[in-house]
Amino acid sequence: MNASTVVAVGKDLLGLADLPAETITALLDTSESLLEVGERTVKKVPALRGKTVANVFFEPSTRTRTSFELAAKRLSADVLNVSIPASSVVKGETLIDTARTFEAMNVSTLVVRHSASGAPRMLAAALNSHVINAGDGSHEHPTQGLLDLFTIRRAKGRIEGLVVVIVGDIAHSRVARSGLIGLTKLGAVVRLVGPPTMIPMGITELAEAPGRAEVHNDLDAALEGADVIMPLRLQLERQGAPLFPGRREYRVRWGVDRRRVALARPDVIVMHPGPINRGVEIAADVADGDRSMVLTQVTHGIAVRMAVLYHYSGGVPAEAGAAA
Amino acid sequence: MNASTVVAVGKDLLGLADLPAETITALLDTSESLLEVGERTVKKVPALRGKTVANVFFEPSTRTRTSFELAAKRLSADVLNVSIPASSVVKGETLIDTARTFEAMNVSTLVVRHSASGAPRMLAAALNSHVINAGDGSHEHPTQGLLDLFTIRRAKGRIEGLVVVIVGDIAHSRVARSGLIGLTKLGAVVRLVGPPTMIPMGITELAEAPGRAEVHNDLDAALEGADVIMPLRLQLERQGAPLFPGRREYRVRWGVDRRRVALARPDVIVMHPGPINRGVEIAADVADGDRSMVLTQVTHGIAVRMAVLYHYSGGVPAEAGAAA
Amino acid sequence: MNASTVVAVGKDLLGLADLPAETITALLDTSESLLEVGERTVKKVPALRGKTVANVFFEPSTRTRTSFELAAKRLSADVLNVSIPASSVVKGETLIDTARTFEAMNVSTLVVRHSASGAPRMLAAALNSHVINAGDGSHEHPTQGLLDLFTIRRAKGRIEGLVVVIVGDIAHSRVARSGLIGLTKLGAVVRLVGPPTMIPMGITELAEAPGRAEVHNDLDAALEGADVIMPLRLQLERQGAPLFPGRREYRVRWGVDRRRVALARPDVIVMHPGPINRGVEIAADVADGDRSMVLTQVTHGIAVRMAVLYHYSGGVPAEAGAAA
Repeated sequence: MNASTVVAVGKDLLGLADLPAETITALLDTSESLLEVGERTVKKVPALRGKTVANVFFEPSTRTRTSFELAAKRLSADVLNVSIPASSVVKGETLIDTARTFEAMNVSTLVVRHSASGAPRMLAAALNSHVINAGDGSHEHPTQGLLDLFTIRRAKGRIEGLVVVIVGDIAHSRVARSGLIGLTKLGAVVRLVGPPTMIPMGITELAEAPGRAEVHNDLDAALEGADVIMPLRLQLERQGAPLFPGRREYRVRWGVDRRRVALARPDVIVMHPGPINRGVEIAADVADGDRSMVLTQVTHGIAVRMAVLYHYSGGVPAEAGAAA
Repeated sequence: MNASTVVAVGKDLLGLADLPAETITALLDTSESLLEVGERTVKKVPALRGKTVANVFFEPSTRTRTSFELAAKRLSADVLNVSIPASSVVKGETLIDTARTFEAMNVSTLVVRHSASGAPRMLAAALNSHVINAGDGSHEHPTQGLLDLFTIRRAKGRIEGLVVVIVGDIAHSRVARSGLIGLTKLGAVVRLVGPPTMIPMGITELAEAPGRAEVHNDLDAALEGADVIMPLRLQLERQGAPLFPGRREYRVRWGVDRRRVALARPDVIVMHPGPINRGVEIAADVADGDRSMVLTQVTHGIAVRMAVLYHYSGGVPAEAGAAA
Repeated sequence: MNASTVVAVGKDLLGLADLPAETITALLDTSESLLEVGERTVKKVPALRGKTVANVFFEPSTRTRTSFELAAKRLSADVLNVSIPASSVVKGETLIDTARTFEAMNVSTLVVRHSASGAPRMLAAALNSHVINAGDGSHEHPTQGLLDLFTIRRAKGRIEGLVVVIVGDIAHSRVARSGLIGLTKLGAVVRLVGPPTMIPMGITELAEAPGRAEVHNDLDAALEGADVIMPLRLQLERQGAPLFPGRREYRVRWGVDRRRVALARPDVIVMHPGPINRGVEIAADVADGDRSMVLTQVTHGIAVRMAVLYHYSGGVPAEAGAAA
């Protein structure tokens, strides 16, 4: 990694909606340099040595927390994991007071997940520390968006002009929103597909340009010409809620199986934010098949979060390339 | 930090009641040297490299645990976090057996929090490892006492001769007890203020010298000439208990607001062990105001705990000043 | 530690049943070299620097998890602790998908505990990463078996020809099974003693050679000539179950007290996997007495797990002896 890759990013990473296309591209370029660290025998660079990254999770997540934790450790940062039930913000303390406490401990970067949309933005406004949104309500999950972009760019060599089909509960998915925003910024066309009750009015206005987002109700038709298929996780806990289909009905209408993959372009890739519900939104043989990027996305997640922590921690660029 | 700052401390830090004034002063001096580490780009010294600090918490506490954890990591120690529900000491094992297990793992220092007063002392007697009390029942919380002393000394340049008002549920507060003991040892006068049911008989006997502790029932009167005001956290979970006032009544009689701050000396500082109940024991504008030390105390907490771990871990003094 | 100590072990450590005697001996030899690290001032070697060890525990265990955690940290690995309730494998994800996620994060070794016998083997078959069984159902607990062997070998200078008495609920004990298998492979004779309902039919077939395992129902008689006594932990939560004796009755018939220790060889040692139930399967004065190895086993556990992680992580042998 090269000192010249340092990018003018803002203080915080709250959503892809805030980032110009060039910044997104620069973050992907840094991810590319850092991906190689995970393949070394000694998977460590000293870029953030002596800095502290706090994972402050008000909503539980083993997967995202461990990805950020490993990313920080491979940059040689000290990591603090704090899991706080959002219901009972600590003994009645306000959210901002909790976050300010970590800031006062000289934590350089707070990685925050919260069930309330906007919570990370509120904290970012109140703190001098860098804040990274690790998923807030149904708003954004920017590092997931970046790792999806990174995976597509590596698989296809570009983003611009690609057709990406996102299938599922668009309304409640921060993954879909960050994906839609990031992909259209970099010039892809995104087709949003799902039950009409799960596609909110006006969602296409999040796209960078009119015409780059389309809403479809027929998955088979939407798959024609697709370069990427992204089934979203079915939140099984919502089953039984009004307007929400059962698992079996969901699979029939919205599940991505081999037949449907064959409707897309021959070199289509299938992505999923994980964890997958095998046989529901994605068939087992598709998840395990050669078009699947599911585990590649996990590997890329570490590289992308290293890049993000690197840029949002006031790192020491000149050292970053040396062995830790 | 200088090798000559090594102080003759005992094996364990169980309470400020055990420490002579010179030892307390020496610990504050070491904290002063270590405070600067938190301001470096690389917040790390190698003093405890290859040593293991175990945070063994039988009572949950994010705030104190993370403070000890960061302090240990910035000294380059390996840290083990163990959270054990006190109710069910592991599968029926005795407390001492649990602690001996960590000792057998070559842990140099056990940081212990327990809901039972005296639990750390019992462990210290049974172990060769160093034991640090991170709060035991309503007995002592010596590192909180030290960080309060450190904060006052830095703000005022001295402790001796100051007037410190501690307000609240003195009876159940280990913070109040460690504060009272430490402050009077270093020559301050402490005024204990609160509902009569919350001020135990004989509490003033904990003071180093007669006359250095006073009990008051009128907060306004007690504030006259105060250099420091320390409202204690109202344990809201005790509300509704006999003899315990409601939140609203508490604020009126014992809450520290702007009017009351104005009754003290013009350069008064306001401290709180956190987390704060805004609008109960401390008004929001006081907590956020320029007299407030609340977040400074958090920053100082790391430096003080680094000093404590350094002295109670058999550190390697000669190396301590070099970069890690 | 010397590069020449690298041993041809398989990819995974699933049970002692899989290992030839020479491999077991080689692992004990490496443990011997690494035991000394725990006695250094700086308890750290760089053998696994830049590698990641994930403790993935589907069944809670503070003791085994912390032992693996410290072992990994003293080898300079990055450690990920993940605790997953087995009942609800994450949001419905399959066990293998969960494990593959960690593999995709470039974790070199997964340390897995699971309440289902065979779960680690299933994962090992599905993954390229090294898998270490940290206890699966009532199947095996190979690192406990190794640390028991190591403790006996250090105390007695050999394993071959020794008489080892294992007392308790043999049927449900993975500790007993790994002990029986490992001890008989190295030439000891194992006497299994306990209530008939707790000794499964055919258990002696696990022994390396016929005649190296015996079943006894009279503890006093079984102790004659014993070099080692290993009372198993009484799972108090099973009390009240059919065929399961009460605590008091258990102590009378199967408890190891001073009188019984005197029936064995004068230089007998008493071992226990911990945590102990004082006054149930082991008398307090025996647990604390000079024949007791209980805490020594804990110390040895770290050395043995360092050896295991070293051999099952693709370590960097040439560096292992240098200071970290």
